Amino acid sequence: MPKHLITFHPGEKKISVNEGENLLQAAMEAGIHINASCGGSATCGKCKIHLLQGMADSPKHPKTTQQEYDQGIRLACLTSIHGDLDVEIPLESQVDKSVLQLKGDRTAHKYLLAPQDIYQLVQGWEVDPAVFKKYVQLAPPTQKDNMSDLTRLTNGLERHHGIGGISSDFRVIMKLSRILRESDWKVTATLVLTRKGYKLIKVEPGDTTRQNYSIVVDIGTTTIYGQILDLNSCVVVACPDGQCDGTTLFALAEASDYNGQISYGEDVITRIVYSQKPGGLKKLQEVVVSTINKIIDELLEMSKIDRSLISHMVIAGNTTMTQLLLDLDPKFIREAPYVPTANFIPPVRAIHLGIDLPDHVHTYIFPMVASYVGGDIVAGILGSGVFQRETLTLYMDIGTNGEIVLGNKDWLASVSCSAGPAFEGAGIKFGIRATRGAIEEVNINHRTYEPMILTIGRTKPIGICGSGLIDTVAALLEAGMIDPNGKFRRDLQTDRIRKGPDGYEYILAKKGETAVQEDIVLTEIDIENLIRTKAAIYAGCKVLLESVGLRFKDLEQVIIAGGFGRHLDLEKAIFIGLLPELDIDQFIFVGNGSLLGTRLLSFSKNLIKETERIALMMTNLELSNHPTFMNEFVAAMFLPHTDASAFPQVIERLRQMKKGEQELRVMS
Amino acid sequence: MPKHLITFHPGEKKISVNEGENLLQAAMEAGIHINASCGGSATCGKCKIHLLQGMADSPKHPKTTQQEYDQGIRLACLTSIHGDLDVEIPLESQVDKSVLQLKGDRTAHKYLLAPQDIYQLVQGWEVDPAVFKKYVQLAPPTQKDNMSDLTRLTNGLERHHGIGGISSDFRVIMKLSRILRESDWKVTATLVLTRKGYKLIKVEPGDTTRQNYSIVVDIGTTTIYGQILDLNSCVVVACPDGQCDGTTLFALAEASDYNGQISYGEDVITRIVYSQKPGGLKKLQEVVVSTINKIIDELLEMSKIDRSLISHMVIAGNTTMTQLLLDLDPKFIREAPYVPTANFIPPVRAIHLGIDLPDHVHTYIFPMVASYVGGDIVAGILGSGVFQRETLTLYMDIGTNGEIVLGNKDWLASVSCSAGPAFEGAGIKFGIRATRGAIEEVNINHRTYEPMILTIGRTKPIGICGSGLIDTVAALLEAGMIDPNGKFRRDLQTDRIRKGPDGYEYILAKKGETAVQEDIVLTEIDIENLIRTKAAIYAGCKVLLESVGLRFKDLEQVIIAGGFGRHLDLEKAIFIGLLPELDIDQFIFVGNGSLLGTRLLSFSKNLIKETERIALMMTNLELSNHPTFMNEFVAAMFLPHTDASAFPQVIERLRQMKKGEQELRVMS
Repeated sequence: MPKHLITFHPGEKKISVNEGENLLQAAMEAGIHINASCGGSATCGKCKIHLLQGMADSPKHPKTTQQEYDQGIRLACLTSIHGDLDVEIPLESQVDKSVLQLKGDRTAHKYLLAPQDIYQLVQGWEVDPAVFKKYVQLAPPTQKDNMSDLTRLTNGLERHHGIGGISSDFRVIMKLSRILRESDWKVTATLVLTRKGYKLIKVEPGDTTRQNYSIVVDIGTTTIYGQILDLNSCVVVACPDGQCDGTTLFALAEASDYNGQISYGEDVITRIVYSQKPGGLKKLQEVVVSTINKIIDELLEMSKIDRSLISHMVIAGNTTMTQLLLDLDPKFIREAPYVPTANFIPPVRAIHLGIDLPDHVHTYIFPMVASYVGGDIVAGILGSGVFQRETLTLYMDIGTNGEIVLGNKDWLASVSCSAGPAFEGAGIKFGIRATRGAIEEVNINHRTYEPMILTIGRTKPIGICGSGLIDTVAALLEAGMIDPNGKFRRDLQTDRIRKGPDGYEYILAKKGETAVQEDIVLTEIDIENLIRTKAAIYAGCKVLLESVGLRFKDLEQVIIAGGFGRHLDLEKAIFIGLLPELDIDQFIFVGNGSLLGTRLLSFSKNLIKETERIALMMTNLELSNHPTFMNEFVAAMFLPHTDASAFPQVIERLRQMKKGEQELRVMS
Repeated sequence: MPKHLITFHPGEKKISVNEGENLLQAAMEAGIHINASCGGSATCGKCKIHLLQGMADSPKHPKTTQQEYDQGIRLACLTSIHGDLDVEIPLESQVDKSVLQLKGDRTAHKYLLAPQDIYQLVQGWEVDPAVFKKYVQLAPPTQKDNMSDLTRLTNGLERHHGIGGISSDFRVIMKLSRILRESDWKVTATLVLTRKGYKLIKVEPGDTTRQNYSIVVDIGTTTIYGQILDLNSCVVVACPDGQCDGTTLFALAEASDYNGQISYGEDVITRIVYSQKPGGLKKLQEVVVSTINKIIDELLEMSKIDRSLISHMVIAGNTTMTQLLLDLDPKFIREAPYVPTANFIPPVRAIHLGIDLPDHVHTYIFPMVASYVGGDIVAGILGSGVFQRETLTLYMDIGTNGEIVLGNKDWLASVSCSAGPAFEGAGIKFGIRATRGAIEEVNINHRTYEPMILTIGRTKPIGICGSGLIDTVAALLEAGMIDPNGKFRRDLQTDRIRKGPDGYEYILAKKGETAVQEDIVLTEIDIENLIRTKAAIYAGCKVLLESVGLRFKDLEQVIIAGGFGRHLDLEKAIFIGLLPELDIDQFIFVGNGSLLGTRLLSFSKNLIKETERIALMMTNLELSNHPTFMNEFVAAMFLPHTDASAFPQVIERLRQMKKGEQELRVMS
């Protein structure tokens, strides 16, 4: 793909971009501030730039006059890059020089894992699904060869495909005789590999081996994600609406929605409390299944695949979510000593749970480790390849809970900290999950305090997702608008900060520029929630490391998983003290790690044993009454941390920022 | 048990009997004729004898006058033997001398297998059921030991009982957490051994290991038998109503009923035809389950065992009965080349079939061999020990179909002949199954043509069962009342033979002596049906033997199975040509062989593999288009057979009978 060089003036910052890339996006990724508060939806008209030279496709917008357009004034959000460009940023958008310098000389600073990289996280596997189809042509019975229909079929599968010792689901036998004869003894058998061997689960007329699909689901406390996979193919399929992140690799379609249980409690504890009410467990089971069914409907609609062609389902979730899905009373998960009912769940037929899939579809449920370290974490360790590398790795899954795993191919230890659902949008006034219209990238001009925001799908903003939240708080801190306790400075000359009904707040997007008919703001309470969340996670990591006599600097790799959207900015996550200050190249962001694992397992039956090994190998450390956890948590309730020595670069940058700000003040 | 010597006068025939035995029964078993046409129910008053000497308990009956009673006249049916007796039989009851001599000198001529003999048919097994209970006391979880509840339980089972690799039924997991805590971590686990290993199917509070019951069912085309077993005990339990035959060994209770499907067709073919009508298959499935449920209700009522304590179910039936039970379309069983849907059926939950047992109860279905050699035959081969002996054995199961197996521990071959349900009461005017009130033993006075009949339970007769039918036809033939074609002689001076609405018939019991308010008769059509049945079975045996180059005389053992009641008289079965003329000691009668096998399998899990080996080892020969079968069948449509050389002793006896009759005529 051809690359183009963009030079921004003033400052002469140069970046290399891909053909056709969006100019506003490119600027954001380079750390170049251009005012933009409609998320890139061409509504606010604020992202005007002066195109000095070069080829770009950029239609005229009503917010630019004909005179401006003739002079080369364009909206950055409408500009596609088709050649080297010289771009001048207007005064009101410019960031001071010191900031530009601090960004370093990289052309892009996002640490995202590209699809091919995720593919390479786990080595040595091939497409060989646990649920597969085999076509056989059988010799019709004769007087001399009148074995039973089932024996004829299983003999045929053994002779033609070398699959022996097949047991049969009773439901298959029901219609077998008729199907064999109506199909003239040419049929496709669907088999599943269980812990006990091969099981015949479906027989169809003719050759349908090319149509073999799986649905994988990650049941998060806040958000449920689903994907539909073509089990014959691991070819990357482009997502139609441009929302793909790395984790959509192999999926024909992806859909997600809030877990319907949210109405009955924000986190696992409140859900468990609700489950103890009369009819509560049943209700929670029903609503989670209802969300899953909605997602399946959407996946089938998007992929245009018929429901009857789904052969398998793989589900991962935390222990409470898994027990609620299975209608297993989670009461004792909440009571000390925190005992789950079962870590290894036998395969369940999807229809048995109320999931609207054909009755032969078995559901593989990822095994769990402890009451607060569930199948989603086991799936993440599988999907990210931690289980097969020597590298000492810290795996962090940041969802409603924060689960952290430390180890490598030989040992694994875990902790869980109730981080709260801030990153998934809950507990944040305008928080939403990473969906179309979510503000996912934010920059703030250090002088004017004007925001530059980008939304998922470049539509008018409807709220702010996890990565946008981190970006905003980091930007507010960087611009000196909040102090290390997360409180707004009251002395700034800007109408972007105001006192709202919930206390002080920053206006990210004004009513006219949003899709929600009101201002989108971030409040001090939101910031406090974020600080609490990041403190719990950081403290959890620290205690886990210390429990095995290690420190952050001993880590060789840190894998970040979570439903942040595509654009978690690692530097900003470090900046607020969510992640430890390590070399940026040591971090890998894998998006939804749980979904990564479910998908991998769908494609490779050999990984079932590895999955069980992971679950058995992991040792869980309970933080609830750990002697040092609470101290560590309190110490982390600061931006970035009360221990400045743990974040030397961040502290230095804040110092420079302050200095720059003072200089600006002197200048103005 | 003390023995007593009975001497009958005139004739001085001596027999040895047990203390307390009934005199009429003892006479019958010795071949001594005493007129009796109410089945031993003390109604007809015909079985008067003169007690010359000895101790007997025999109350006065209204049909004897005080004067007669004072002289020593008693009703044989009311007489219990308590010492050596001298008994005079009145003139009208006596049988001529030649008949007495022909009976030989044995004291009893019934070849029944006593319970301890059936127990010894299969060697080297011990009580070790496939479904068993284990009690465990678990250590309650602590913060340091908070593994999942399921892991705690399976670890406990492994540690305390050495049972590893347990998989779990999902339904067990559902209530596990609560049961473990409510029972203070003391529970009883029910496990089942499947082809794939041990599976946990139930967890109960406390120690319930002593309460572990199984229900076994033999689904016959005409009759369904069920038994309830105490899996902890193979102690013989006496049957309360005196109806026990050998097959009730180990059973706490036994119940039986006509298969409700009879209303939809008399044999498997008409059932299959019915199953092809709209809703037919569903109807047949429902009615057989309804019969099974009725039998289960009865078993639970009789044994006073709570339904919830049933842990296992074992079912055997012919292939059509099995497919109908399982709702498997039997269409192709009937169409050449006669292919069943499946011979090996995976374990099915009873409740899934509509059987009213707790939802953890798995049903083991005996594997089948071919469309007309089913699980009942495999069960019979198991239960009778053929599979483990060197002895060349012919196993004959005579039910609605006649299935015949030839072989030993190394090889097995089978045929099936559609014999018709005569022996189970269907197709016979007053035919009933072997139940209370069924005429099961019959003798006829050669001079007066008066009958001596005994019923099951010694109640007024309601009909005639299989053994009674054989006895009657043998007696009619022996007394020269029918010719070898089964037609009544028209010239006899007796009101016992008459022309009825269906042609000529013999009156076994007159209206006043029966419980059905009408005469109980045997018609010429009934006899024709019997001849057809016995011809099919005999011809089947012959063709099977010839197919492997053997003849009847090569046989070392013949095992007869069938629901005849307790009193199949082997000599009479040979006399009519149903069984080949071999030494009487070569025959074993095992009663319901299918039930024998289901029961054995319930008690011993090691026999599951043997069962599968039997089913796989058996080679089936199709008779339907066999070149010589039809000739053999036609040749056998004669009493005993057109080939007199095959039945030399029977022919000789008939000759002597005829001679004796001529002498009697001369004398009178």
